[in-house]
Amino acid sequence: MSTHGASLIDVARAAGVSTATAGRALGGYGQVSDRTRERVLAAAAELGYRTNGLARSMVTGSTQTIGVVVTDVANPFFATALRGITDVTSPAGFEVLLANTGGTREAEQRAVTVMSEKRVDGMIVAAAQPGDGAHLKHAMDVGVPVVLLDRQVTGVPDADTITIDNEHAAAEAVAHLLELGHRRIGVITEAGDQLARVRSGSRRRGLFPSAVRLRGYVRALQAAGIEIDERLVAPARYERESAYDAMTSLLDSAVPPTAVLCTDNVLASGAYRAAQDRGLSMPADLSLVGFDDEPWTTLVRPELTIVEQPTYDLGARAGRQLLDRLAGSANRSPQHVQLKAKLVVRESTARYPASPQEDLAREERK
Amino acid sequence: MSTHGASLIDVARAAGVSTATAGRALGGYGQVSDRTRERVLAAAAELGYRTNGLARSMVTGSTQTIGVVVTDVANPFFATALRGITDVTSPAGFEVLLANTGGTREAEQRAVTVMSEKRVDGMIVAAAQPGDGAHLKHAMDVGVPVVLLDRQVTGVPDADTITIDNEHAAAEAVAHLLELGHRRIGVITEAGDQLARVRSGSRRRGLFPSAVRLRGYVRALQAAGIEIDERLVAPARYERESAYDAMTSLLDSAVPPTAVLCTDNVLASGAYRAAQDRGLSMPADLSLVGFDDEPWTTLVRPELTIVEQPTYDLGARAGRQLLDRLAGSANRSPQHVQLKAKLVVRESTARYPASPQEDLAREERK
Repeated sequence: MSTHGASLIDVARAAGVSTATAGRALGGYGQVSDRTRERVLAAAAELGYRTNGLARSMVTGSTQTIGVVVTDVANPFFATALRGITDVTSPAGFEVLLANTGGTREAEQRAVTVMSEKRVDGMIVAAAQPGDGAHLKHAMDVGVPVVLLDRQVTGVPDADTITIDNEHAAAEAVAHLLELGHRRIGVITEAGDQLARVRSGSRRRGLFPSAVRLRGYVRALQAAGIEIDERLVAPARYERESAYDAMTSLLDSAVPPTAVLCTDNVLASGAYRAAQDRGLSMPADLSLVGFDDEPWTTLVRPELTIVEQPTYDLGARAGRQLLDRLAGSANRSPQHVQLKAKLVVRESTARYPASPQEDLAREERK
Repeated sequence: MSTHGASLIDVARAAGVSTATAGRALGGYGQVSDRTRERVLAAAAELGYRTNGLARSMVTGSTQTIGVVVTDVANPFFATALRGITDVTSPAGFEVLLANTGGTREAEQRAVTVMSEKRVDGMIVAAAQPGDGAHLKHAMDVGVPVVLLDRQVTGVPDADTITIDNEHAAAEAVAHLLELGHRRIGVITEAGDQLARVRSGSRRRGLFPSAVRLRGYVRALQAAGIEIDERLVAPARYERESAYDAMTSLLDSAVPPTAVLCTDNVLASGAYRAAQDRGLSMPADLSLVGFDDEPWTTLVRPELTIVEQPTYDLGARAGRQLLDRLAGSANRSPQHVQLKAKLVVRESTARYPASPQEDLAREERK
């Protein structure tokens, strides 16, 4: 079997028992007397025998391993969620098999197949393509429970989902800006190309969190009776430079926004920098809201108003849900947990216009 | 074996072949005719049979899995290194089994034992306690190659090590400050309690990176003929608040430093904030140097001068070294790779005194 070290046969011989008995003593299953167990363990220690977890797994049917599939573990969001997962599953005796997909469907399919072959007991997946979950359904069909993390996925109706209420979170941020008097509110988003779909009100499944947040933006404005102005929806890739350019083009437009919502932390950092470089005074000239309580948001001046996501809890809840499922203690029907995000108002958002005088001055400058 | 889905016996029966033949066809080993393989694969697909990676691993002796043990995956340093590891090992067909130790020796020992039992092919370990590697040596003794990441560890002389030249990196940062004219240079460090050991010049093995950096600080000052003033060595825990307090006490001292080096990114963020809150103007009143090119370091004003660590490369090199070792293509003797860090001078460091006039004004104020 293995090329390493002493074999089970060596241990059995040294302890003067059958291989089957030695296996039971080392694996902790079946009937073995205490004396025999001690003799076997002593022989194993002396020979430097390494318990074969594979052999044990083939007997018990459990590898005590869960698969975690994320798009990018270097993204602080997933790194923190992963910590939440391991903090819950490790004390329960489960190890985590990790895969990065880089956001591609092919890499995710491959990871799911490999993990399934390695007989993980279950999987937690932050899907690369929420619109297509056929491979995840297949994994469930062959007996691997799947918990969807952060993204609901079409085609996997039986999977548990642990997500953040992104629509409400974004809507709350926009409501905060509306309350301050802003009417021209821009958004920098990765889901710029999905504005039509979002406005049409299709279901939440199959959407990236960024698109769900864009829907929150749309809904909050519609609720306030404000027409959506497509020129205020600035698309950007998940890169600081791209968000920088998106902010610049918003500010260059004929009627620039007085406030901007950025639908994630990387976009917020690029937008913040673009406003700084332009010499804009925040929040006097521009109000800005970001996502995620990253360290930089309280180191910059003004400190950034943000939507704080319960990222660690998201992972911890996903881990707990999977453990419940594996223990058979979860409800039979799929569970859909939505965690609430929290608006944290800091210094980058202010009343608009600041005062009637300033409003006049602003008008005169035009 | 497994409680899930169709068994190998079912597939063999449906394909009309022996179980051994079905196993060879599905596992891709041994002699099977193309026609038989096709028949077996078709039967497996129809029955929803999941290849049993465990069984295959017991035959091949390889699980195509590597263990990665870090103290905290939510720390951007380890998250980025982990991405480097997976980007290298995944295309080679290896999955990553991940463990967080929270920096405790017990958790690390447990993780190493479990991974060894699960028959990982090798391990990459960022040790919780660089002073004690007995459990890692044991893993190597039973045939699991270990690559040490970021920390050299005593007692594991045969392990490969991939580290950053932290001593040189810190020394270069201090040399930069010396060149600008600073003479009272403080340091905020997690290794405050190891100053005596660091000054005595004991070997690098068994030291945390923070202690190695403290040694770089000491060496650079000594090389410039400057006596080490213990009042300028401010200990802090790995928390922003603790670094905030350390910076405050440095600034409160009778003869405060004119420049401060922070030996990691979290400490730098706390120190930066303390200087801001005190109303100090950087770099006029104080020069500051941090570690790691985190997003915030270019969003704050002034932008922070930093030591940029090749974190992603650190992980990628560790992954490559382990793959070489597993392929038998690595040098027989242990490899010790040290990557270079890079000083990136930005706006938070400036000449001291700024000008003779300012020097006079400063003296008069006292």
